[in-house]
Amino acid sequence: MADVNRKMILNARPSGMVDASTVQLSEGPVPEPGAGEALVRIQYLSIDPTIRTWMDDAPGYLPPIGIGDVVRGAGIGQVIESNSNTYAVDDLVFGMLGWQDFAVVGEGEGAAQVLPTGVEPTLALNLFGVNGMTAYFGLLDVGAMAAGDTVVVSGAAGATGSAVGQIAKLSGAAKVVGLAGTDEKCRWIVEDLGFDEAINYKTEPVGQRLHAACPKGIDLYFDNVGGEILNTCLAQIALRGRVVLCGAISTYNQEGHVNGPGNYRALIARRGRMEGFIILDYVDRFPEARAAIFGWLTEGKLHQAEHIVDGLESAPDALNLLFTGGNTGKVIVKL
Amino acid sequence: MADVNRKMILNARPSGMVDASTVQLSEGPVPEPGAGEALVRIQYLSIDPTIRTWMDDAPGYLPPIGIGDVVRGAGIGQVIESNSNTYAVDDLVFGMLGWQDFAVVGEGEGAAQVLPTGVEPTLALNLFGVNGMTAYFGLLDVGAMAAGDTVVVSGAAGATGSAVGQIAKLSGAAKVVGLAGTDEKCRWIVEDLGFDEAINYKTEPVGQRLHAACPKGIDLYFDNVGGEILNTCLAQIALRGRVVLCGAISTYNQEGHVNGPGNYRALIARRGRMEGFIILDYVDRFPEARAAIFGWLTEGKLHQAEHIVDGLESAPDALNLLFTGGNTGKVIVKL
Repeated sequence: MADVNRKMILNARPSGMVDASTVQLSEGPVPEPGAGEALVRIQYLSIDPTIRTWMDDAPGYLPPIGIGDVVRGAGIGQVIESNSNTYAVDDLVFGMLGWQDFAVVGEGEGAAQVLPTGVEPTLALNLFGVNGMTAYFGLLDVGAMAAGDTVVVSGAAGATGSAVGQIAKLSGAAKVVGLAGTDEKCRWIVEDLGFDEAINYKTEPVGQRLHAACPKGIDLYFDNVGGEILNTCLAQIALRGRVVLCGAISTYNQEGHVNGPGNYRALIARRGRMEGFIILDYVDRFPEARAAIFGWLTEGKLHQAEHIVDGLESAPDALNLLFTGGNTGKVIVKL
Repeated sequence: MADVNRKMILNARPSGMVDASTVQLSEGPVPEPGAGEALVRIQYLSIDPTIRTWMDDAPGYLPPIGIGDVVRGAGIGQVIESNSNTYAVDDLVFGMLGWQDFAVVGEGEGAAQVLPTGVEPTLALNLFGVNGMTAYFGLLDVGAMAAGDTVVVSGAAGATGSAVGQIAKLSGAAKVVGLAGTDEKCRWIVEDLGFDEAINYKTEPVGQRLHAACPKGIDLYFDNVGGEILNTCLAQIALRGRVVLCGAISTYNQEGHVNGPGNYRALIARRGRMEGFIILDYVDRFPEARAAIFGWLTEGKLHQAEHIVDGLESAPDALNLLFTGGNTGKVIVKL
């Protein structure tokens, strides 16, 4: 066994993208599992936009990552040593393992989950993981999507957005429109994933295209990006329309004052609703979503994509991909 | 009977406040009621912020007022001639009578409501009218106020805001904080209406005062004003907090780009909700609200104030009062 644990440490709070001055590789001893604990060798890191928000010194749904601490993040690893009845050697486990080679997992709060045999780790991180759960409950529960709805989703070629659009179609949406940042992504979501239309928000006039695609307005807008796209969608919200606030990736690297969506006022005349959620609140209902997703997967009706990046040292660049739009589907770092 | 009907006509779309170049007095013949119609002599006009929004050429929950048309607005008048079985001569009726001396009311959609005997016209326009209904359903239905909630309301010395704060206390709110624009208004809502605290948003640091008054955050913010106050309240929203979007009076006279509330992102981490409504959707449930309000009134637990302005020619100035904050309570024009 290696006797060194490489760790990505938050060295300073980033302004904008992360780089070598804010996140740095460091080395330490491999931790020793205590009683009731197990040692895990990490294989995959789940790269999610929310990690960037934890790097800021701002209140959130979890405390900020401390300066000098390992970057917080979900991952999957294999148990290589265990003093616990929960984890057996060779088990694959999912949890907040952090950006490092080895982690110790315990019991109770913050425990890892043992993956059922036969579930691919990448699937566990994507459709069966945070992204699939977020898409499912954000769309159907927070957004209360109904059959016949016109649904718009931003970040549509990302891990969550691509699941949202597909689950919307599978749940009876009349029309699903996705926004993405390259023509290739737009083709992918329409041709491979079954979205009705795609809009390249970098090259096309979003407001006009949405107006043509959704002549009766947008019943449900699933927002992964915030910023000007949120504002444009609000202007076209239908009567009793819903905006599901999942993320605001366009603003996470922004410094100083963040402009808000002036068109929030459309919610008054159209009796609309804008609501945020955090998927951790739905943990008790994950089995329900996983059963539905498993069914769709086995019928071949649900597709995913992964963007795999090699090596712990590439984790900061992998995180930045989410903000430059360099990925299609789930970004995963393979250790 | 007078043979002239004075009418306030929308002459041009205002930018900012209304004035003699945008709203003008004009004269015409007194209209003749047809079959099934009645002629009403208008006594009181209800001056509401929403009238200003109808003057813009922008989509809303009602179409814009046409150039050359009488300014749309609710009012109360007395039936002086009737060809209808619905309206008897001398009945007091409430409806969209418009800014004029006389109106013809019909049946079906757009009909007026006959006031029950004994209801003061000013009460009918205020607590029993749009303002009381808006406060009641906005707070209890849209906002789902629960006993123990910390409630903040802006425009707290206005007709709707003053009712919101009182109904919140009567419904078990743990704390009610009102925002108003003068020390006199602040004293009134605390000393006469029973608000727990008042903040003068023109002279006090709103964020700091709210933080001290609501240390666990704001469970329900009833927004009459929009703008910077909405943004400040969003930053302090509690877990599962609700923002009821009733109006955005601070923005109605604003030209060009309206800044939105950048702190809407707090709704994500705090699982919050921001929702708009239009009181017209609740007409079927008005009796429920009126019964509750009648009960509180007879127990002496609910108070109102009116700001009466004399003469049809003063209606534009009366509307502007709402934007300068020159009123306390309901603004009514007496003809």
